[in-house]
Amino acid sequence: MSVNYKMVLEYDGSRYAGWQRLKTSEQTVQGKLEMVLSRYAGEPIEIHGSGRTDAGVHARGQVANFCLHEKVRPEEILAYCNAYLPEDIRILKVEEVPLRFHSRLNARSKTYVYRIEMGEKKSVFTRRYTYGLGKTLDISRMEKAAGYLTGTHDFKSFCGNKKIKKTTVRTLTEIEFQVMGSELTIRYTGNGFLQYMVRIMTGTLIEVGLGMREPETIPEILEALSREAAGFTAPPEGLCLEQVRY
Amino acid sequence: MSVNYKMVLEYDGSRYAGWQRLKTSEQTVQGKLEMVLSRYAGEPIEIHGSGRTDAGVHARGQVANFCLHEKVRPEEILAYCNAYLPEDIRILKVEEVPLRFHSRLNARSKTYVYRIEMGEKKSVFTRRYTYGLGKTLDISRMEKAAGYLTGTHDFKSFCGNKKIKKTTVRTLTEIEFQVMGSELTIRYTGNGFLQYMVRIMTGTLIEVGLGMREPETIPEILEALSREAAGFTAPPEGLCLEQVRY
Repeated sequence: MSVNYKMVLEYDGSRYAGWQRLKTSEQTVQGKLEMVLSRYAGEPIEIHGSGRTDAGVHARGQVANFCLHEKVRPEEILAYCNAYLPEDIRILKVEEVPLRFHSRLNARSKTYVYRIEMGEKKSVFTRRYTYGLGKTLDISRMEKAAGYLTGTHDFKSFCGNKKIKKTTVRTLTEIEFQVMGSELTIRYTGNGFLQYMVRIMTGTLIEVGLGMREPETIPEILEALSREAAGFTAPPEGLCLEQVRY
Repeated sequence: MSVNYKMVLEYDGSRYAGWQRLKTSEQTVQGKLEMVLSRYAGEPIEIHGSGRTDAGVHARGQVANFCLHEKVRPEEILAYCNAYLPEDIRILKVEEVPLRFHSRLNARSKTYVYRIEMGEKKSVFTRRYTYGLGKTLDISRMEKAAGYLTGTHDFKSFCGNKKIKKTTVRTLTEIEFQVMGSELTIRYTGNGFLQYMVRIMTGTLIEVGLGMREPETIPEILEALSREAAGFTAPPEGLCLEQVRY
């Protein structure tokens, strides 16, 4: 017998080498989860995340699934994991799902949020979850540039993996800007994201907001199909995987 | 010449032995500020806070004042301090004020906020600023108890300093409750607070919310004028000095 469980979780990625389990010497979120779940099940458990998050990136709504040989109460898994996981990983929900459910293959869309502090110093309470730019951005220029990014495009110029062989075409359905005091939040929603894609888009939009690039150059960047054409990779601490939809 | 400056600041109190400068071996918020301001002024500067916060307690709106022998642009002080202070202390505002202004003596009222997580595990993003109770509270019982605490009373039973000689009479103008998901926020506003007063009131209200005490016993606790009559001292990490009014 095999029972499939879906979990939604949040984590503070500050001290992790990202989501994906690597060498055993490195701390990863997947590695921590598999260790606790394997102890719970009494056998090795493998979990499948909706996608990787890079080292230092956070999540408020990462989704993962895993199979157990026994049917148990989802609340029991949730309570066990939360008791044994460190305080920077929290399971928000566990539920039984059909065996065909796969958190990565079935994901329809995702939302990532990037937070930028434009003021001199980051808030002491959100300093680990915000990028301290320390410069004022022209949001209307950034919104104009973002307009060229939404839609279906080949995002090869915004991909950190230069040797990628699979398709780099993705659909970005929305890029929203919100200003609260001196903090800017950019919310990206799309059907899928390439490696570093949100961080490179953010770095490029920041360069537009600082007046170093014109909004109208975005189509040229997309057409170049070359990482060099785009802007810098914004640092990981400002990024958070907000939601995965199925 | 002497020029008086008022500053508003926020800090994450996690790694400090509180606001007040003690022995030089201990890290305090006042000590850090005085060190940076003295370096800026080129002579020893003493600052006066609106009141002490205990070890581990946070602030979003602590107020302090200090005198300089020279008239300088307030923005210059702000920028200097934020550049040299660690990332867990941030100055929000500096302004010149009349020489008679004293941040403690002129304070009319203060608001403290206490955050309690009732769910199994604290949010990973606010875990340093929330008390992880892990139990469900009956808020209506707590609101009833809080009704007996508001007004002008002798709060000696809610004072951590048993040897206090000054008056322990204070006026609490409001205690507000707000629930967001599994997190409870209690907001206390009053003309002044005794040592540990908010934390002892919170501990007592938690005991009421758990059914360990009846709301109607609050008047007896107040009348006892004895620390032993009240509940436990809730831990510092959930507490934050929100605002000081003049």
